[in-house]
Amino acid sequence: MSGSAVLLIDCPDQRGLVARVSSLLYERGANILHADQHRDQELGLFFMRVEWELASEEVSGFDLNAFRAVFAPLAVELRMRWMLTSSTQRPRVALFCSRYLHCLADLLHRWRSGELLCDFCLIVSNHRDAEPLAGFYGVPFEYVETTAGTRDAAEERALTLLEEKRIELVVLARYMQILSPAFVSRYPAAIINVHHSFLPAFVGARPYHAAHGRGVKLIGATSHYVTEVLDDGPIIEQDVARISHRDQVDDLVARGRDLERIVLARAVRWHLERRILCYGNKTVIFD
Amino acid sequence: MSGSAVLLIDCPDQRGLVARVSSLLYERGANILHADQHRDQELGLFFMRVEWELASEEVSGFDLNAFRAVFAPLAVELRMRWMLTSSTQRPRVALFCSRYLHCLADLLHRWRSGELLCDFCLIVSNHRDAEPLAGFYGVPFEYVETTAGTRDAAEERALTLLEEKRIELVVLARYMQILSPAFVSRYPAAIINVHHSFLPAFVGARPYHAAHGRGVKLIGATSHYVTEVLDDGPIIEQDVARISHRDQVDDLVARGRDLERIVLARAVRWHLERRILCYGNKTVIFD
Amino acid sequence: MSGSAVLLIDCPDQRGLVARVSSLLYERGANILHADQHRDQELGLFFMRVEWELASEEVSGFDLNAFRAVFAPLAVELRMRWMLTSSTQRPRVALFCSRYLHCLADLLHRWRSGELLCDFCLIVSNHRDAEPLAGFYGVPFEYVETTAGTRDAAEERALTLLEEKRIELVVLARYMQILSPAFVSRYPAAIINVHHSFLPAFVGARPYHAAHGRGVKLIGATSHYVTEVLDDGPIIEQDVARISHRDQVDDLVARGRDLERIVLARAVRWHLERRILCYGNKTVIFD
Amino acid sequence: MSGSAVLLIDCPDQRGLVARVSSLLYERGANILHADQHRDQELGLFFMRVEWELASEEVSGFDLNAFRAVFAPLAVELRMRWMLTSSTQRPRVALFCSRYLHCLADLLHRWRSGELLCDFCLIVSNHRDAEPLAGFYGVPFEYVETTAGTRDAAEERALTLLEEKRIELVVLARYMQILSPAFVSRYPAAIINVHHSFLPAFVGARPYHAAHGRGVKLIGATSHYVTEVLDDGPIIEQDVARISHRDQVDDLVARGRDLERIVLARAVRWHLERRILCYGNKTVIFD
Repeated sequence: MSGSAVLLIDCPDQRGLVARVSSLLYERGANILHADQHRDQELGLFFMRVEWELASEEVSGFDLNAFRAVFAPLAVELRMRWMLTSSTQRPRVALFCSRYLHCLADLLHRWRSGELLCDFCLIVSNHRDAEPLAGFYGVPFEYVETTAGTRDAAEERALTLLEEKRIELVVLARYMQILSPAFVSRYPAAIINVHHSFLPAFVGARPYHAAHGRGVKLIGATSHYVTEVLDDGPIIEQDVARISHRDQVDDLVARGRDLERIVLARAVRWHLERRILCYGNKTVIFD
Repeated sequence: MSGSAVLLIDCPDQRGLVARVSSLLYERGANILHADQHRDQELGLFFMRVEWELASEEVSGFDLNAFRAVFAPLAVELRMRWMLTSSTQRPRVALFCSRYLHCLADLLHRWRSGELLCDFCLIVSNHRDAEPLAGFYGVPFEYVETTAGTRDAAEERALTLLEEKRIELVVLARYMQILSPAFVSRYPAAIINVHHSFLPAFVGARPYHAAHGRGVKLIGATSHYVTEVLDDGPIIEQDVARISHRDQVDDLVARGRDLERIVLARAVRWHLERRILCYGNKTVIFD
Repeated sequence: MSGSAVLLIDCPDQRGLVARVSSLLYERGANILHADQHRDQELGLFFMRVEWELASEEVSGFDLNAFRAVFAPLAVELRMRWMLTSSTQRPRVALFCSRYLHCLADLLHRWRSGELLCDFCLIVSNHRDAEPLAGFYGVPFEYVETTAGTRDAAEERALTLLEEKRIELVVLARYMQILSPAFVSRYPAAIINVHHSFLPAFVGARPYHAAHGRGVKLIGATSHYVTEVLDDGPIIEQDVARISHRDQVDDLVARGRDLERIVLARAVRWHLERRILCYGNKTVIFD
Repeated sequence: MSGSAVLLIDCPDQRGLVARVSSLLYERGANILHADQHRDQELGLFFMRVEWELASEEVSGFDLNAFRAVFAPLAVELRMRWMLTSSTQRPRVALFCSRYLHCLADLLHRWRSGELLCDFCLIVSNHRDAEPLAGFYGVPFEYVETTAGTRDAAEERALTLLEEKRIELVVLARYMQILSPAFVSRYPAAIINVHHSFLPAFVGARPYHAAHGRGVKLIGATSHYVTEVLDDGPIIEQDVARISHRDQVDDLVARGRDLERIVLARAVRWHLERRILCYGNKTVIFD
């Protein structure tokens, strides 16, 4: 297969939505690979993800622009929010990190192995620790100093870099700075963070210390989109690991690294595969 | 809501299947609650489950027989195997058990609590241990003796009981007898068993002993449809639990009981909700 | 084996504790079955659990009272809190419940199967729903009405029943009333509750609604000792299950029942086997 | 703390073992950090791990050689197999890999982060893919060609390298060659492999294909010591992940990589921390 298209839709629920979208695709000759729908009955919302072939041995070529033209009026009629993407256009991604590099190293290795279909165009950090890794994987590295008094300037600098590189997705791979609402508002549902607790337990700083203090028997990690409210954005993925009274804070930190790597990597992959729809403060994850 | 209909389909894959089925339902006025599709690209097969309302405040009544009449020719044309069921008709179920009663007690309690939408019409056992539980939950109990020389007669007796009660699903809740191919062939994809290992590891008798002997670090349980080949039928659900060198065989047995209860209960519920399609030796589970 | 003794110890850490306790047992001829120690280095505390045979084919009889007499001065010298129990004395337990009976039914079945080594002497409820189950398992049932204005009288009545029955452990099997600090203070580290969330996330009422509202990807359940602060006592066990956007509140409730059953049953079993030591607001669980 | 000693013991079970070992340590002034025992009652075996401080602010220095001299006669008397190691001597480790580099990259990053207390002295591969990673982390890389006719020569070459580097532990990080019994016998309980299935299910080649063919609902990975019988050595760690009918073989491979990384990393860490005792075909893992 030499590529596929993905259509993501959400709109008020009403009868015949699946019939109308799938009939339109059928008429245009689309060979559907996956289709999934979800209804939130409480809120009366409908969500859909359809993926079809763009070209293959059998398909000489699906005309994506022509489809876009006929789909747009239907979307207006049915009050849809929609996004149509092609796997031939790889999203441009920036990675932000600080001194803990396990998530960064993990994402870079997955990317090199072909697991993440995107272009890593930029690594931004307020420390220099990641520079050798960036060099090894051939990703441009930018050191952006952040000190108490210079957050605004630092964010300005980071935003300029993101624009220059035409970044579509920002991944906070254990970036230890809080982004301002102004920054966050520039990338709605396009900044993914990993928090080292099972949110909403232990919001804020030092969650492993808090978990140890409370004596929980499982620790967790959470990947989520960043919104203006700290640690409160739509949750994408969570996982947990069992601990015991034998584990000190350092052990939780070590165990937690494996969780952080995995929940962040899953979130990034699902975002890149256009499997995530945000609504309210939640996510639909099409599997 | 006063009921819903479920249509389960599998057929050779081809373009337009979703469009044609969903359009037909749309034309008949169905209010679709859930729809899910799956393609097995390797085998070129298509699977679909659609659930829609039969009647509600807004829906005065969907005519299931009329739909059946118009759907049948389409199914022939597209070479579909299909099943159309209504939630207003509760499946009639028989439970088989021996001396271990944890799965039986669990299913009966879930049924009493309204978690399992079926009629438990019969409990068959080669021991009398389950009789008080059957009495407490008001399910007819039949003792069917099985000894070395009388398996054929015992199966004959059990089949007669199943026919008298018009049983549609047989659940082997830790039933310690092996059913003959002749018996099994009477209930294709309608006998659910629980095996106390993570199949295909440790097929056959005494799997906890085998797991202990091999020194595994996780034990499992598997629910599956029964076929003529022992422990080889389509797997419905599996789960595992962590064990350690401290656990002796008795500990594995005790830990395993919780797994057995849960994987069997899930399988029974999914079957009753028409979420399972068998193909080859595998299952599609629509969630 | 016809019984074993368990010694639970906690004291300030110092050198030679294991040597002194194990030497004393060795001198008295104890055949140790299990021994486990834990040090909390941060707090400088030492915890130990030792289990040994009381009588067997080889052991004509270990004199528990004689051991108690020689151990007591050592315990004073080393500033130990300690508890010495014999498996021949089964703890007397009361179960409290309301209208959700899944935890109660589960505990009663485990008890009947020999999994829980205790005497269930009493079931207390503010509803009559559990009465048939109590009757089936032969456990005395007491209906204690609780209305807005009568909590004090109801607790008084419950305490009287607990005293009459000489209850040592109270299990709240989804009991939907909040116990007063006065009640709780009568049974320190002897009231076990199950909370239907992954504490400390979603404390308080309706945690499944809260979990659904927040859009988490895992739900949990927690068993803990009850203290005067609601949902804040020492955590004994926790477990989680994966959910998705497809799950409504009712689905979370249903999925959660399996978690609640399991984390409560484990907590009760570990308490009965003297595997739990509380310190501060945490637990050591000897496995 | 500037180091600790670990004593691992296994011997026939008898009374007083804990008392005698802990008393000896107490007399020599050892400050015990952790102590754990296990009895296999079926086989009548006793296992023990003790860890104590070698020097700290309070401990001017524990004389390990003097202890060894007094412990040796006791060990003979009690028929113990034993190993006494100091954390100040870091084990020398070789990594073997082929073309899949996820386990190698993971181990190297953990090592760099300080999670694995050893010296990675050598990377051996029958492909050149790992050479850049080896260079980045500064570990000597040796390409050893293995073709159908040259296995003996290749193993000879590898053994020479291992001896030159005085390697104590060999980690097969997805090394796709089967080692000969002669090779294996040179490193008893000192070669760790990761197998990409939940052993003993799906032994041999292409386990993800086999798992897909059988239609299992969970896939697994297993780390184990290598013995002369393929995929049959003592299991160290296992973990599983949930899959569904939607997952093709490629998806299993991708999901499985995360399992392989984690179970292999845990096995290596536990081996380095002297937490593993082999007996028969099983392991005791001291946590």
